[in-house]
Amino acid sequence: MKIDVNQTAKLLENHDNIIILVHANPDGDTLGCGYALLRALRKLGKKAEVLRPENVGRKYTYIYEDLGKEDFEPEYVVSVDVADIKLLEEDARKKYGSKINLAIDHHPSNCVECENLLLEDTAAAACEIIYKVIDALGVGFDKKIADCLYTGITTDTGCFRYSNTTSQTYMMAAKLVDLGADGPGINRIMFETKSKSYVLLEKLVMDTLEMHFDGRCAVVHLDYDMYEKSGSDESETDPLASKTRQIEGVCVGIFLREKQDGSFKISLRTVEPVNASEVCRKLGGGGHARAAGCQCDGPFENAREKILSVVQEYLR
Amino acid sequence: MKIDVNQTAKLLENHDNIIILVHANPDGDTLGCGYALLRALRKLGKKAEVLRPENVGRKYTYIYEDLGKEDFEPEYVVSVDVADIKLLEEDARKKYGSKINLAIDHHPSNCVECENLLLEDTAAAACEIIYKVIDALGVGFDKKIADCLYTGITTDTGCFRYSNTTSQTYMMAAKLVDLGADGPGINRIMFETKSKSYVLLEKLVMDTLEMHFDGRCAVVHLDYDMYEKSGSDESETDPLASKTRQIEGVCVGIFLREKQDGSFKISLRTVEPVNASEVCRKLGGGGHARAAGCQCDGPFENAREKILSVVQEYLR
Repeated sequence: MKIDVNQTAKLLENHDNIIILVHANPDGDTLGCGYALLRALRKLGKKAEVLRPENVGRKYTYIYEDLGKEDFEPEYVVSVDVADIKLLEEDARKKYGSKINLAIDHHPSNCVECENLLLEDTAAAACEIIYKVIDALGVGFDKKIADCLYTGITTDTGCFRYSNTTSQTYMMAAKLVDLGADGPGINRIMFETKSKSYVLLEKLVMDTLEMHFDGRCAVVHLDYDMYEKSGSDESETDPLASKTRQIEGVCVGIFLREKQDGSFKISLRTVEPVNASEVCRKLGGGGHARAAGCQCDGPFENAREKILSVVQEYLR
Repeated sequence: MKIDVNQTAKLLENHDNIIILVHANPDGDTLGCGYALLRALRKLGKKAEVLRPENVGRKYTYIYEDLGKEDFEPEYVVSVDVADIKLLEEDARKKYGSKINLAIDHHPSNCVECENLLLEDTAAAACEIIYKVIDALGVGFDKKIADCLYTGITTDTGCFRYSNTTSQTYMMAAKLVDLGADGPGINRIMFETKSKSYVLLEKLVMDTLEMHFDGRCAVVHLDYDMYEKSGSDESETDPLASKTRQIEGVCVGIFLREKQDGSFKISLRTVEPVNASEVCRKLGGGGHARAAGCQCDGPFENAREKILSVVQEYLR
């Protein structure tokens, strides 16, 4: 059942021992949502925990490092920023995938089976929705909650660069900074600081650049052995997806990332009028209008052919 | 005499035939200020013109391309975002450098000799001050004015990334977007789109990377012949200044850009506690706490030695 922010707050007030699910390969938005909500629930005197995936990027530790662990038998399951249970880590999916009570999300393609769904697909970040939920809970924002929510908003808007950024996004950022969020510090960690291993990985990936369809489509890919060559790992790959769209004239930027099993995760970044979510849905994926993803079997040549044949239709 | 926003608005109301000066190698803030003010003054029925420098970057044309030229004998001279008359183009400096009636600026180091000075050094962008001046003029904002002001705010904050960004900055961005500013479009032009010539120039410059003082200081330089090698020109060099500060562990990023006469323009980007403006003042320059600049004679080795010897004091 679709519910609104106030109904969501009431549900949370009426439950305890809450487990929060975030998506695998977690980004700033899903983590920001999870830990902002956890902090608000604990302030209400409830037991709450985030089921944290294994490969959380080192740069996100400030979001949760001060928190203690709570042991309890989960009674209520909430997913945040999870569009599809396929996007949960395997353990989480097996244990809780069919038992989600409440899903809070901003992906128009959301297909999580759950008792209640709070979906606001005009929100640039799911953290914008969590902001409203915490506001409705009346528990008050502290600096740590503000940091978590700011993180989601800035990462899902590419630091206020993407076309999903609205005046509401800026207004929330202003409020969160007033509430103590360290905007410049978070942006420095998320966008300005590059580890040496990332710099090397980016160089390897950008060396694979291919242009297609008269320069309107750019493709780069990451082979699994590039992690070893660069000293990097999967948690550092997020910024690579948007590199190709930056080149003048490119309408569709494609990043193919090989996984350990030889299959490929494909990330699409587009400019109007190409709808990235529509393209990816044709291959079983989904996402947003300007940023979406899907999976394809390897080898690289196979995955590339699959995605290019769909993209071609949309570039006509 | 130092004056406030309302006094500034009164002065502008009481004058006509206004020439507006922007700094040489103009960036988004000085151009945004100049053309937002010009548009507001023309809406008041006044004659106004910006003395546009020669090498305005191609990406800035949307700021002024719809405007007609007005011929008049200048009676009132206003400089915007100009910290020092040395930063004017030579022609502008000779003609108007000693005749500035009103200076509007946000650089703490401002030393322009003028009848009246509106200086707000807590403003992230001079466009934040122009926003208030236009508001005080009561002339109303239109989409074009909003685009100009948004441009200055987003470029001088590195798209809301730098530590000068305050909740006031976000609030103004929210208002400007509500007034019609095309935030995502402008950010795409300013930050997301890279020309092929720029991509090549960046590669040449980043190949010169040197690390000093245990990795806390990174230096890159641009030789004048790199413009020919890459097909680029001076108008594309802005984003290069902040590249070095992005490397993990770097406190001081230095970019030395050779000019046609063989001298070097030095751009400093720092993280706390190194004050870039103080460092640059020691070599006759100035700017902000995290971003400042100065000039040095060539050759490169000479300029590098000069700036590094000052930086060393501040890294102790």
